[in-house]
Amino acid sequence: MASERELTGRLASFFPSHRDLQVGIGDDAAVIRQRHARVVLCCDPVIAGVHFEAGAERSLVGKKAVNRNLSDLAAMGAVADWLLVSLILPPTTSRQDLDALLRGIRSAAVAADCCVVGGDVATSPGPLVVTVSAYGHLPGRALTRSGAKPGNTLHVTGPLGGSIHGHHLRFRPAMAEGVWLAEQRSVTAALDVSDGLLLDLQTMLAASAQNGVAIGAELDASRIPIRPAAHRFNDGNALQHALGDGEDHVLLWAQRAKNALPDGGPLTKRARQPIGRVVQEPGLWLVQDGNRHRLPESGFQHSLSSKQQAPRRVPPKVQ
Amino acid sequence: MASERELTGRLASFFPSHRDLQVGIGDDAAVIRQRHARVVLCCDPVIAGVHFEAGAERSLVGKKAVNRNLSDLAAMGAVADWLLVSLILPPTTSRQDLDALLRGIRSAAVAADCCVVGGDVATSPGPLVVTVSAYGHLPGRALTRSGAKPGNTLHVTGPLGGSIHGHHLRFRPAMAEGVWLAEQRSVTAALDVSDGLLLDLQTMLAASAQNGVAIGAELDASRIPIRPAAHRFNDGNALQHALGDGEDHVLLWAQRAKNALPDGGPLTKRARQPIGRVVQEPGLWLVQDGNRHRLPESGFQHSLSSKQQAPRRVPPKVQ
Repeated sequence: MASERELTGRLASFFPSHRDLQVGIGDDAAVIRQRHARVVLCCDPVIAGVHFEAGAERSLVGKKAVNRNLSDLAAMGAVADWLLVSLILPPTTSRQDLDALLRGIRSAAVAADCCVVGGDVATSPGPLVVTVSAYGHLPGRALTRSGAKPGNTLHVTGPLGGSIHGHHLRFRPAMAEGVWLAEQRSVTAALDVSDGLLLDLQTMLAASAQNGVAIGAELDASRIPIRPAAHRFNDGNALQHALGDGEDHVLLWAQRAKNALPDGGPLTKRARQPIGRVVQEPGLWLVQDGNRHRLPESGFQHSLSSKQQAPRRVPPKVQ
Repeated sequence: MASERELTGRLASFFPSHRDLQVGIGDDAAVIRQRHARVVLCCDPVIAGVHFEAGAERSLVGKKAVNRNLSDLAAMGAVADWLLVSLILPPTTSRQDLDALLRGIRSAAVAADCCVVGGDVATSPGPLVVTVSAYGHLPGRALTRSGAKPGNTLHVTGPLGGSIHGHHLRFRPAMAEGVWLAEQRSVTAALDVSDGLLLDLQTMLAASAQNGVAIGAELDASRIPIRPAAHRFNDGNALQHALGDGEDHVLLWAQRAKNALPDGGPLTKRARQPIGRVVQEPGLWLVQDGNRHRLPESGFQHSLSSKQQAPRRVPPKVQ
């Protein structure tokens, strides 16, 4: 089968665009212009053994299924309104497990002030799959992943790495942060960190290339916020985990200058500190202990033993 | 695991309603009141081995995934606008198969004049799953499955039975018929026939019960339109197949009187002929060769050998 990036391109190339489609396949979510609103749509599954350990607590699986999609809406600067839920249950699913799944879905929906309006239940001998479709609206502009420019500083809403130790099931989507960032004209691009900082940063840079001219980014190792769980692998590679693990579901954004954001709002002090900057030179660069070295194209994604890796989407989301 | 009906009830009972939700879980699709429009949402998967034979032509699988959802929109009287597509591919999927799948999805979308605006691709060792979410709007009123009343005549837009012989992959969703029926005030209820005429008719009757008072229906065996493929089982039970096979994806509706519909519109002459009527007496009744006998609650769904049965959803859709 083709690689992740080929599949992504394949999907986007297959489906024609439309004049009412402001943002189509390839960003965190689709944005549709309507006469009186802009609608934001996205759809992501979670699959047992791929996005969560087969034994994971079912209420957390339900939560994750919703929150993955809410994080995509957040990355567009959107507010969530409605959810659809499609459950594919192994025939052995108990009533207790189903209820726990539904409780998790409900609690994540309630926390984001949105509402499950439709659902479908099927059974299949395959793994448990929960597919959520989210439907929201934009209070302001759409925050796309394209638009980053050399000189912009780079920021994340929260710490990174080690998400497999529980965060990937328990994260809170950065809804308020997304809407607030979209209000700030100095923010040029944003996306949800799901595939790992390096991969998602590359995605942003690729989407932001102007007239085919590639751009790059330089990260400051000492400024990357590392989640304490990234140290729990005891491999001395916490930074590597922060750069590559994925499933962080924080927002990564680029802004015009280091101090371009107004006071107030939902960001932490730490998030206002740049973790790096966009540069003219293509490629990814890491400044660490006074040295500047180039990072491999693939980031660190294959440098972890499979045991230590978070359950990985293969290929990652392409919406 | 609980039965289909219990699961349906479970889903509906789990998720609170909302003042903007005109039709929630339990109908073919959800209807949301907005300031300037009413939005219709639905979401249904197709799963290899459940909704299609594992070896089915991939372009037809893509088509079916879209058309199942369009049929749900049609049953609400809605027009399709936007689609999201989530693919879960077995790791062995070839590029050719993926392309065929996408071609099928695209051609069904084009045929209904709607547009795929987002997508996600994941791989999993489980079966191929294509989940489509459809987003549409109501040009007129919402055509719900509740509202049928004793004395109403019952109708279907097309023939029934034997869908496993190809129809379940190749059906055309009754989009024009759905919009037209919603315009007719004499139409009191409608739904998509996916689980089999008897089961879906029971669903309509249950949804149409007023103040807990159950109603019933009487079908005229000689009036049931039987798809030629329903005779191909060579079991002499073509009528049984028409009543129970499912996956017909025609619309079943109830109307105030036999000749209540105006001339013109997309219905066939045959569809204007009643196949039966709603009666006060609870239960399902079949008039055949001058005899009137009661049909079992479960319809004929279990009377076919598993070889002859269409790949069955277990449990059926609950949206």
